Amino acid sequence: MTGPCFIFFFPLLNLLPFFQTLEASHCSIKGLPLVRNIADLPQDNYGRGGLSHITVAGSLLHGLKEVEVWLQTFAPGSRTPIHRHSCEEVFVVLKGSGTLYLASSSNKYPGKPEEHFIFSNSTFHIPVNDVHQVWNTNEHEDLQMLVIISRPPIKVFIYEDWSMPHTAAKLKFPYYWDEQCFQVAQKDEL
Amino acid sequence: MTGPCFIFFFPLLNLLPFFQTLEASHCSIKGLPLVRNIADLPQDNYGRGGLSHITVAGSLLHGLKEVEVWLQTFAPGSRTPIHRHSCEEVFVVLKGSGTLYLASSSNKYPGKPEEHFIFSNSTFHIPVNDVHQVWNTNEHEDLQMLVIISRPPIKVFIYEDWSMPHTAAKLKFPYYWDEQCFQVAQKDEL
Repeated sequence: MTGPCFIFFFPLLNLLPFFQTLEASHCSIKGLPLVRNIADLPQDNYGRGGLSHITVAGSLLHGLKEVEVWLQTFAPGSRTPIHRHSCEEVFVVLKGSGTLYLASSSNKYPGKPEEHFIFSNSTFHIPVNDVHQVWNTNEHEDLQMLVIISRPPIKVFIYEDWSMPHTAAKLKFPYYWDEQCFQVAQKDEL
Repeated sequence: MTGPCFIFFFPLLNLLPFFQTLEASHCSIKGLPLVRNIADLPQDNYGRGGLSHITVAGSLLHGLKEVEVWLQTFAPGSRTPIHRHSCEEVFVVLKGSGTLYLASSSNKYPGKPEEHFIFSNSTFHIPVNDVHQVWNTNEHEDLQMLVIISRPPIKVFIYEDWSMPHTAAKLKFPYYWDEQCFQVAQKDEL
């Protein structure tokens, strides 16, 4: 009775590259319509609880070289890591409220951050290399923001806490949402 | 009876620099709060009927060097000029609908543009140097968009029509909403 098993097995093996292609197909710029419905774009939490991330216009996804735009939603209590990056970053808060924690990069370690209340229809930008964290501190509502960065794809240095020296912060590159397409881009270059 | 006239005249003269300072005071980065309510930011049509423009995060206004973010609303029938620029530009449509006209920069003149329907919650970006125009072709509703550009402040080449040679397009710099703060920035440098 190995026959039927083989018949069943081979098509599955043949389908594997198909699924891999399907999974990575959104990494290709070719054939993308110029005008895209944001509701149809890939959305994921990339293993981070409470996060929804959509790359609205991206470097690896859409071929942009100088700017990148994300739509991010943080469930109550969820937050970014404490981090810094050497690019400009602008936030436009679309819904909800929360707290921006911000510390300068001029001492050995960030130290106690400033706290800024952020709210629907507010905007702020992060000075290049300043250490920051955005936290949905509103227990009742999602925090939704458009995030704009320069110099994509983003290179993020992550801190375990506010007393970690800048030199000990750990580089995460490619970042969570760039991982899959970064690998595809590298394979394409081989 | 020249006395009372002088009394009235001198204070007015003294007030002139005060009004000029008031008008240009939003050009100074100093003392701006980090988190800003977009509803409190300067909004104007800059002499263009049907337009409302707000620089949400800007080069001249907020000291950004690599990206700039605008909130623009076009009343029914209003539109951008036919134009091009050598920077990246991303649109996120927040409300309404309209038409994007887009022509390549690879011939001597733009020629008949492609027409793309744009709609609420859609996004698109303009390839660097491609000639384009965004038009609120919806008779019943405002078209509101967040616009992101790289390499601010923007340098725009304007076309009278789609058959004008690229070489004849006229540079408008500083652009409408940058004029006032560009002059203040230049004076500050003297």
